[in-house]
Formats: sequence, structure tokens, C-alpha cells
Amino acid sequence: MSAVNSYPLHIARRMADIAPFHVMDLLARARAFETQGRSMIHMEIGEPDFVSPAPLIEAAQQALREGHTHYTPAVGLAPLREAISAFYAEQYKVDVAPERIVITPGASGALQLVLGVLVNPGEQVLMADPGYPCNRHFVRMVEGEPVGIPVGAETEYQLTAEQCAEHWQSNTVAVMLASPANPTGTLVPEASMRDIITLAKKRRGRVIVDEIYHGLIYEGHAQTALAYSDDVFVINSFSKYFGMTGWRVGWLVAPTGYVAEVDKLAQNIFLAASTPAQYAALAAFDSDTVEILEQRRQEFKRRRDYLLPALRELGFTIPVVPQGAFYLYAGCERFSDDSYTLAHRLLNEAGVVITPGVDFGHHAPEKHVRFAYTTSMANLREGVTRLKNFLAL
Amino acid sequence: MSAVNSYPLHIARRMADIAPFHVMDLLARARAFETQGRSMIHMEIGEPDFVSPAPLIEAAQQALREGHTHYTPAVGLAPLREAISAFYAEQYKVDVAPERIVITPGASGALQLVLGVLVNPGEQVLMADPGYPCNRHFVRMVEGEPVGIPVGAETEYQLTAEQCAEHWQSNTVAVMLASPANPTGTLVPEASMRDIITLAKKRRGRVIVDEIYHGLIYEGHAQTALAYSDDVFVINSFSKYFGMTGWRVGWLVAPTGYVAEVDKLAQNIFLAASTPAQYAALAAFDSDTVEILEQRRQEFKRRRDYLLPALRELGFTIPVVPQGAFYLYAGCERFSDDSYTLAHRLLNEAGVVITPGVDFGHHAPEKHVRFAYTTSMANLREGVTRLKNFLAL
Repeated sequence: MSAVNSYPLHIARRMADIAPFHVMDLLARARAFETQGRSMIHMEIGEPDFVSPAPLIEAAQQALREGHTHYTPAVGLAPLREAISAFYAEQYKVDVAPERIVITPGASGALQLVLGVLVNPGEQVLMADPGYPCNRHFVRMVEGEPVGIPVGAETEYQLTAEQCAEHWQSNTVAVMLASPANPTGTLVPEASMRDIITLAKKRRGRVIVDEIYHGLIYEGHAQTALAYSDDVFVINSFSKYFGMTGWRVGWLVAPTGYVAEVDKLAQNIFLAASTPAQYAALAAFDSDTVEILEQRRQEFKRRRDYLLPALRELGFTIPVVPQGAFYLYAGCERFSDDSYTLAHRLLNEAGVVITPGVDFGHHAPEKHVRFAYTTSMANLREGVTRLKNFLAL
Repeated sequence: MSAVNSYPLHIARRMADIAPFHVMDLLARARAFETQGRSMIHMEIGEPDFVSPAPLIEAAQQALREGHTHYTPAVGLAPLREAISAFYAEQYKVDVAPERIVITPGASGALQLVLGVLVNPGEQVLMADPGYPCNRHFVRMVEGEPVGIPVGAETEYQLTAEQCAEHWQSNTVAVMLASPANPTGTLVPEASMRDIITLAKKRRGRVIVDEIYHGLIYEGHAQTALAYSDDVFVINSFSKYFGMTGWRVGWLVAPTGYVAEVDKLAQNIFLAASTPAQYAALAAFDSDTVEILEQRRQEFKRRRDYLLPALRELGFTIPVVPQGAFYLYAGCERFSDDSYTLAHRLLNEAGVVITPGVDFGHHAPEKHVRFAYTTSMANLREGVTRLKNFLAL
């Protein structure tokens, strides 16, 4: 009985614009192969392969022993907001009042809050294409209009102020940036960040900066957008650098005047972020945690430094060295003009799982794939060997 | 610097229709009094006073020891979906395939998924007024139009099929029910549930049933709406009966044809529910957990059976005995024609915190307050004494 729908489905129009992650099909297929005993090298997964650092796990266990299982305030635990404020002071020498910091169910929750508060139906939000696919879906969810602007190697896959100015319309209310970006791993240059913030201010719009990969930068030190302006929204997360993907806890820094609206929306749509996750995150800035995280960052750097030249050698095009995150966005035009089919063939014939470009937007996705170095050096080496054998055919 | 907004705020129009929980102001004031050493009796809080049952906490701790800190699939852990399916079979003798069950970040997450998938801008969703205030806000979030239908004691504060038919327009796509309801604690009678489902089917709309208080019923046994139809959406949660409020984990049962759309939206807006919370929930149906939960249910019944006549005796109007949840929705017209001011006076002058009617809708909120019996018998007795002294003035 449950397989039958007894009358026609009514599905909101927005759902036609909200795409699934195509890589999920590849992942499901890979898991099925693995069940049959076939070995798969996973270079598609957008989360660190490491378990959350032990001090975080211990902090959660301690909180559970103490019975912290009730709701927190919608904006999150006060000590966690204070710890994040102290983190900005220490890490970036930037003063961010705890009152401007809202704890969210992952960066996803933060994106939803910002766009829910900012975007009316039909209003436009600018963003780079390729980019994190959910960004345009969050905009659609509230009936806004995402405007993907094609970006390439010539701007290190980031929007410039000139591009933003060119695409800015009377109904544009915000521009979304990510630094480092997914899938390209590149940073927004400091000058560009300042120029875009200046432009947005002039046009009475807002800049939303995703800094969830900010801890994972392998050359130099990047500054937070909060150093340049109190008018920006900054989104961050305990998922990637801090290794807490599954817990679902992140944060949002909002301009002061928006905090009450963000709080109101958070109360209504989430109630609060997960309490054990928030208690775990309280240990995220402890020195023993940071030591583990810095070792992991070095390990990611080693992986990048191995995989990048190895893929170039195989014939993939990676024109820009990504400074951060754990992705390589690679042109595959030498092997195929259809990256989706290539990804499926690599899965089926070579036992290597990667993400096809289609998951990151509409700008030349068929010519690109994303490699994630979220697996061990041994696996990366085996993956490269398999790729080499497959591509030599 | 961070206190200044350097240019005007652009705030989406929907935010004017999304109200904060007014009780939060009362709660903040009460906490401030407590800091000063004043005693407060909390009868406003919509979550059980009990810590999560020990077996759930142990299950989470075990999962953390085993390193389960990564993302789960967007629809949740397969064994948890299977456990919920088994729960429906055992508890309700209803066959619900695990494939129709989606694990969500609390019932809040489930509501967002359903309304995101169902409601186009301008489309209407019917709901009872008074009711859970977030329901109308979830509809507004996706630019739909919530239609609150006044309900009173004559229909046990629930919508009837006649009322739904009367308010059903060509652009109505769904009706939301809650059984037991917040703030009234009443059930949708079985015949009424069947009639509303039949009506919705005839009108090609959907029934969304909130069953988050379903485990907390004090007389007889209520049947899930899933027993009457596979076309309904049912929302449930581990928060209330299972005592897991802070963890943020609930579930949605969707008609088969909607599952792929729900999955797609969940991937994009949540990624997944919190992993430690899902592992904890795996122990929710174990016999040692159930034993604890049933003791707690009996305790809630004792509290209701004490508080209901006590409030009536004081002069509050409670025309219908609520069969479930942990709320008493009481007319306060004998004491005030302004329940908001009354709630503030009770806080300030009597040290009793309750929720004013304004938090539950637009239908006579000034004549009603909500008492939550989420505190001990001793506290309830003290609260009643304080109320008595205050009201005798």
C-alpha cells in the first residue's frame, strides 16, 4: 500500500530549481560495489577523514554526564559565543562582540538565517559559479533569485568588484563569497574583499562571506572579512577545520542591527543548535585541540602537495594552486567533454570516486571534476595509480 | 565600532510576520531575578524537566567512543529509520516502510522540509488558532500564506472537517493538525481525522499531522494518522516523550512520492541531523528506556491531575480536560482582559512564570495563558500557592 500515491503530488516550483548532490548517486554506487568486496578510493567526500579530536569528544561526554541535554538559547550557549569572540581577538586581532555571534546548526543553518532575514521574493543574490551548490538553493528556498557569475582561473575562481558591479541590479541585495572556496580552494584576495565590501555598501547591499575553510589554509595567513567591516555577515563552522562535521554546529557573525532578527528567525526555525555539539565545541579552542588540528592541517597540506602535481602530470588542468580547503578543481577536457560520464567511468572501471562539475554550478561543469584529498596519502597514491592506468587505456 | 550600523538595514518583509516567542522576554527577566536571589516557579517552559534517559546518554557516549562523528546520509541513519518503522508496527500496528521515514533536526526540521516541498508563494495552509506559533512562521518562510482558523472549547480546540471545508480555497494546499496540540493538549478525534483526510484528498491537498506529543497521552491510546492514510505527512520527534529536546532529532513520515524531494531538500538545507543525537536515539525504543519514559509519563499525569483542578479552583477557565502533552491552556478573563500584562505581573509580583496567549496566535490571546507542568509537584504546589495569594489581592 505504501508504494502507491493515491492522488497527484503537488510539489512547490522551487523544487525544480533545487538540485540533488549528483555525487550522492556515485557514492551510493560505490558503497554497493564495496559491499560486493570491490575496493574504492574515495576522493569525492567533502569532510575530513579524521574523527573529531579527542578533547572535543571528552567535552561532550562530560556535558552528557552532567545532564546537559536541554535546549540552549536560540543564539547558543553564552560561553561558546564568548569563546568564539576570544578566538577572533586572538587569531585575527579583530574585536567581535559575543552579542554579534549566533551559534547555528552548522554553516547550513547560518546561511538559512542570513538569507531568510535578507532576501525578499525576486531579489537577487550574486555568487561565483562554480561554487557551493547549496548557496543558490538557500536563495531559492526563500524565493530569491540566485545570480551565478562565471568565474575562472584568471580571477582565481573568485568574484571581483568589477564583476559584482557589472551584475548588480536594482533588486540585488547581497553578494556571497567563500574564502577559501569550495570547489576551488582559492582565497578572495584582500584588496578584492575590501573593494567588494565598499561596492556593496555603496549599493546598500550586504556581503556574506563563507569562511568555513578558513582554518585550512596552507600558505600564509588569511584575514577574516570582519577585519574590514562590521557590515558583513560572516559564516563559519566547527565542521571542517575543527573536524566536527556530523555534530552540526557552526556560527554566524551578523552586523549588530540584524542580530535581533536573526535570533527571532532562529527561535522559530531551529529552536537552537544541538546542545551536546555546543558543549563539545567549547573545547575547540583549547591548546590540546589546536595541537591536533594543526597536525591535521599539515597532513592536508602534504596531501595537497602530493596530489596537485600528480594530477597535473596525468593531464588534468589545475591552473591555480589552491591555498586552502581540501579540494582540487581540475579541468578534464583532455580526457572527456563530459565530466559526469567520466566520473561514472572512473567509478565503474577504475574504482576511483570523484565529484563531477555539475554539482558546482552551470559554468562549464562538463569540463571539470573535483578531487577531495580527504583520504590518506596511501589512498591518494593508490588513486593516482588507478587513474594513471585508466587514462592510459 | 560594532554597535554602529553604517548604512540602512534591508530586512525581508517576511520578518515582519515572524514573531519572536514573547515568553523569552519573561524567561530572561525571570533568570535575571534568579541571579538576584529571587525564587521563580517556572510554568512556562515547553520541555520536560527531566534529563535525557540514561540509556540514551550511554548510547551517545558509546557512539562517540567508537568515533561516529561524521555526517550521516541526509535522510538519517538506516538503523534508526528501521527502528522507527518497527516502532510504528509495534506501537500502532501500522506498516510504515523505513524508506518513508526521514530523520530530521527536530520536528522543526521536519516542518521546514514538508512546507518547503509543498508550498508555493501565496499558497495557503490551514491551521488551528491557537496553535504552535512556528507553524505559521514556517509557512511564511517559504512565502506561503498561513490561514489561522479560530478554534475553541466547542471543538476541543481542534479543526473540524467542516471548518476546513469552509476555509479551503483554490490555492489551499495543506492543513496542519497537531494531536495532542500545543498549547491545548487536546487530541484530534479519530472520526475528525478521517474526515479531514478525506476532504484533503478530495481537494487534492495534504494533511500534515504533528504527533510530537503522541507519547504523552494520559487516557487511552491514540492512533497515528498513518493508520488512516499513506497520503498524510506525519511529524514526530525524540524531544518531548523521549526527553531529547536539546539534541535536536526528530522524524518525518512522507507519502512515498515525496520522499525523493524531501531527501533533496534535506541534503541542501541541513546536510543531515546531528550524528551523536541519532546514535542516542537508537536506544529510544529499548525496554529500559521505555520503562523510564513510562514512569515519567505517569509523573506528568500526576502533575496534570493536580494542576488542572487547582487552577480551576483559583478561577481559571479550563473547559476541556487535555488528554496529552504537558500544557493547560487556561482562560484568565476573571482576572484580566490582558493576559500579557497578567503574565508580567505574575512574574514580577508573584514569582510565577507562565506563557501569555499572544505566543499561540491571534484568536483571543488576551484572554488566555498557558501553564506548562514541566516542573516538580513541589514546584507546582508552590506555584499554586503563589497564584492564590496574588489573585486574592
